[in-house]
Amino acid sequence: MDSGLFTINNVWMMICTGLVFFMHLGFSLLEIGLTRQKNTINILFKNLFIICAGLLMYYIGGFNLMYPGFEEGSAGILKFAGFGITAPENGMVPAYASGGYTWWTDFLFQGMFAATAATIVSGAVAERIKIGGFMMFVVIYVGFIYPIVGSWKWGGGFLDSMGFYDFAGATLVHSVGGWAALVAVFLLGPRIGKFDENNKPQPIPGHNIPFAATGVLILWLGWFGFNGGSVLSANPAITSLVLVTTSLAAAAGGISAFLTSTLMYKNYDLTMFLNGILGGLVGITAGADLMSPNEAVVIGLIAGVVIVMGVALIDKLKLDDPVGAIAVHLICGIWGTLAVGIFGSMAGIDQFINQLIGVGIVGAFCVISSLIILKIIKSFVGIRVSEIEELEGLDRHEHGMDAYPDFRANEH
Amino acid sequence: MDSGLFTINNVWMMICTGLVFFMHLGFSLLEIGLTRQKNTINILFKNLFIICAGLLMYYIGGFNLMYPGFEEGSAGILKFAGFGITAPENGMVPAYASGGYTWWTDFLFQGMFAATAATIVSGAVAERIKIGGFMMFVVIYVGFIYPIVGSWKWGGGFLDSMGFYDFAGATLVHSVGGWAALVAVFLLGPRIGKFDENNKPQPIPGHNIPFAATGVLILWLGWFGFNGGSVLSANPAITSLVLVTTSLAAAAGGISAFLTSTLMYKNYDLTMFLNGILGGLVGITAGADLMSPNEAVVIGLIAGVVIVMGVALIDKLKLDDPVGAIAVHLICGIWGTLAVGIFGSMAGIDQFINQLIGVGIVGAFCVISSLIILKIIKSFVGIRVSEIEELEGLDRHEHGMDAYPDFRANEH
Amino acid sequence: MDSGLFTINNVWMMICTGLVFFMHLGFSLLEIGLTRQKNTINILFKNLFIICAGLLMYYIGGFNLMYPGFEEGSAGILKFAGFGITAPENGMVPAYASGGYTWWTDFLFQGMFAATAATIVSGAVAERIKIGGFMMFVVIYVGFIYPIVGSWKWGGGFLDSMGFYDFAGATLVHSVGGWAALVAVFLLGPRIGKFDENNKPQPIPGHNIPFAATGVLILWLGWFGFNGGSVLSANPAITSLVLVTTSLAAAAGGISAFLTSTLMYKNYDLTMFLNGILGGLVGITAGADLMSPNEAVVIGLIAGVVIVMGVALIDKLKLDDPVGAIAVHLICGIWGTLAVGIFGSMAGIDQFINQLIGVGIVGAFCVISSLIILKIIKSFVGIRVSEIEELEGLDRHEHGMDAYPDFRANEH
Repeated sequence: MDSGLFTINNVWMMICTGLVFFMHLGFSLLEIGLTRQKNTINILFKNLFIICAGLLMYYIGGFNLMYPGFEEGSAGILKFAGFGITAPENGMVPAYASGGYTWWTDFLFQGMFAATAATIVSGAVAERIKIGGFMMFVVIYVGFIYPIVGSWKWGGGFLDSMGFYDFAGATLVHSVGGWAALVAVFLLGPRIGKFDENNKPQPIPGHNIPFAATGVLILWLGWFGFNGGSVLSANPAITSLVLVTTSLAAAAGGISAFLTSTLMYKNYDLTMFLNGILGGLVGITAGADLMSPNEAVVIGLIAGVVIVMGVALIDKLKLDDPVGAIAVHLICGIWGTLAVGIFGSMAGIDQFINQLIGVGIVGAFCVISSLIILKIIKSFVGIRVSEIEELEGLDRHEHGMDAYPDFRANEH
Repeated sequence: MDSGLFTINNVWMMICTGLVFFMHLGFSLLEIGLTRQKNTINILFKNLFIICAGLLMYYIGGFNLMYPGFEEGSAGILKFAGFGITAPENGMVPAYASGGYTWWTDFLFQGMFAATAATIVSGAVAERIKIGGFMMFVVIYVGFIYPIVGSWKWGGGFLDSMGFYDFAGATLVHSVGGWAALVAVFLLGPRIGKFDENNKPQPIPGHNIPFAATGVLILWLGWFGFNGGSVLSANPAITSLVLVTTSLAAAAGGISAFLTSTLMYKNYDLTMFLNGILGGLVGITAGADLMSPNEAVVIGLIAGVVIVMGVALIDKLKLDDPVGAIAVHLICGIWGTLAVGIFGSMAGIDQFINQLIGVGIVGAFCVISSLIILKIIKSFVGIRVSEIEELEGLDRHEHGMDAYPDFRANEH
Repeated sequence: MDSGLFTINNVWMMICTGLVFFMHLGFSLLEIGLTRQKNTINILFKNLFIICAGLLMYYIGGFNLMYPGFEEGSAGILKFAGFGITAPENGMVPAYASGGYTWWTDFLFQGMFAATAATIVSGAVAERIKIGGFMMFVVIYVGFIYPIVGSWKWGGGFLDSMGFYDFAGATLVHSVGGWAALVAVFLLGPRIGKFDENNKPQPIPGHNIPFAATGVLILWLGWFGFNGGSVLSANPAITSLVLVTTSLAAAAGGISAFLTSTLMYKNYDLTMFLNGILGGLVGITAGADLMSPNEAVVIGLIAGVVIVMGVALIDKLKLDDPVGAIAVHLICGIWGTLAVGIFGSMAGIDQFINQLIGVGIVGAFCVISSLIILKIIKSFVGIRVSEIEELEGLDRHEHGMDAYPDFRANEH
């Protein structure tokens, strides 16, 4: 591995790091777009906190916890709380990480990933969670739960030995966030007005659909880095295949969700189109490097149907997920993970079972741990805002400000 | 060509692919910003459809149709409908495409370009076209017309043999979209209220100019990939010259359009400034690799004047183009294509005639084919929405939703 | 230096150029978000003008003025007005600029930087400056003052010989803009209503906080290019360290500003969180390549406190800076520049004194020159709009248009 190739691999990984960072803007715009104006500041605040605190927590200990074997073979968990990680001597030369990139690039790329898991939760619990409790949850989830799960596979742990495959984190990132979202939504209960006296779900429209659409397009671009960077090098054949499968799955997911929802609801539903794109992206994430373009299209088409059904299912279960995060990240994350056993170069019944086991173990761990964490937070500081705060909006109560304080509409 | 250089070329092309993809966000924001609130969802829906369906159509057949000779010399048109294109054996190694990039990168970069042509149409027909008819048009135009025209030059066809030059697609992308926009605008007729009883054009202001400005800045960035990627390698001297000529033409176009419109209308018109930047970008696209920076500035300055005149001309012709797409993409596309015969390293009377012939042939083909396609669509499903739908907005009628359903302004 | 490494270095520098360009969108959204709706068009217009005119002025003469020794040893100032700079013969080969990139990349990267300094001023003077006067100021400041100061350090001038260090421009870019902002704000006086009859500062809320938050996230991403590109090569160890220190300082700045302001004002203040992130980014800019990650966190934490204090100080001095530009760019720019003498691999009392001298000299030059320029502009065309224009908004008076002309809110 010569220094030129090391340099180009590292450049690619830095670009992908930037793109994954940019996904946080995508998530922020998607979430505020699909929720009400009165909670906009609150959601933006939560998302900024996730990026900043998530990165710092990953720096303080998460990185060492997740990749225990990397630094001179020492057990990572013992190294935990090694505030001020220092690059190992060989961390800057081509010998490191199979010549792909430097130690610092490694940390930053993984750190940007870590914060993503918490962002997924943020959307699902929007408009009613207490900001203080949520911030505690983020610190614990990004600092401990995410890296522990990650270490089982990407850190070379037992899921890896067992044969579980998850290329870029359909399970390890999206479902890890999705399971916590499910638990949090269950514990929080629905927003006031989401279900009427007959328990029928009522639409609570968001306040800025152009922001939501902008968010989705930014997320698609960000996925170039999320999946493209998960190659962990700039290998031309694999990176370019991954971008193709990622984009085709996104396109197929969007078209399929739009067609499915048009058939079901007789309406060209933009929100379903957007969620279909995201579903396709999540769906291809586990096996983006294993699939042919044809298989990517099929995975995306199925993800588009899954999304529409998933959103309906969440409603039926009387769960209130304002942005559809559970359907997108959890349900499509599971679909994508299982798809590795059905399509692509690793397909087979054994692999399918491996995938199923991985999904189950990660799910059980995430559900139990988020249940414990959220229960504890609930008993200490509470997790749901007061009724008056929910009705008047979290922006005014928690932040003392308005998202559009000087905005005037025109009279007509 | 060693593997390090192949890798870096491929990385550059993947980045440019991402940037061209990002242009779709730029176009979306520009188009919704310059149109009325009541049609916002509709425009976003159209743009998402263009990206997704365009990419899939290009995958199903467009790519093979456009580059017939690439895959082992077989005639592309016969290969059409080869759903599930498979990379040729040598498509992943430095030997492919002169060492620039892999087959997958090639497909995805070109696929992102393909969708752009349809997006140009989208803006011009906004606020009155039937979504169903428009989607049919997109599928046919991106799947067939765009790749056929592209094959004549970039696929090594007769325009290429003849000496016609179009570096990044001033004619092959922008005019291909622009001609269809012209035909569609002519067939559709103006929006209700665009021309008063004396046939005088009336301004119909958009609803969100910050979105439009954001769109233009994103497009400028995207053009780094559109033009920079058209080098088809990371050649340092050419790529960096191209970014310089592209940016200088954009800057000169903006300044010149703003000055021209200030002189004519005694107002610092932001919309003209924005269109001037786009005009400069389109203007440099045909010869970004041939021009000195000085020549790029001159091309941009002229494009800025052309834009202001062009917008006035479209009005005078009683055509209604809500976002100025025809002036920007068609008129400046023609200007830029002809400029290759006037400025830069290929300038000369012979080249000018070649350029003129190319513009004419592409124009004739695009006008005739879009006329036929749109006429057929019109007779089957219709192309214009009903008066009541146009007045009340396409969002409510076609999509059953509002762009800002929960948006409240402040009382003052 | 082989051609592969030259190519990859050049690719990295072109990407960074694109990212610094993208910062202009970040600044634009931040500035319009934090100001009132009635001045939105005006601010967008100013920002577009800065990018376009700034780039052209840098092209006409600024680049040669700033890097006098680069072109065959000739004195740059004599070369000034060499409209149509031509790349020197060796400017496209690995020998140029230590093998990092081509002459064109050099020009464009530096040109994008140049425009940034003026953008900083734009935010501080918003909502009351005359557009004509401001445009004159931009042309002079970007064309002359910025490159002169830059030549003292980056052009190999006396500040460089003296031992002053400024990695990516905490002083040379951010303070150069910040000092001019301070002078302009002082000369302009506060907006009507900013201080009440008892001289107590009154909040004048902006009109679109989501735009401001979007702007900050785009700026963070842009800083990957601003600091990452200042390495002037793709050196894996240094570029990746720089991205890590940059991101950690941003994260720490955000958290620290939010905690400080929560302690002081009992509110989760999103604007302070945003400014804290920017403060951290500016704070790390002078020594991003010298600091360990731990030191970057400390610099960011301090920057976060500095920002909160700085904003309060500006208020106390009866200065009216609508977007907090002086606190972010000037005060944190000074902090970051001095931090090079306190933390990191160059720390020491001598270095601290060098940094202090550099800050003082640049400050004196910028204050005096902007005072002279603005005084002259004031006496010729005036710098402040009329009271009626300020009250009714600059958009209507200078541009004859509205930012959201068709925007309707929903009735509830």
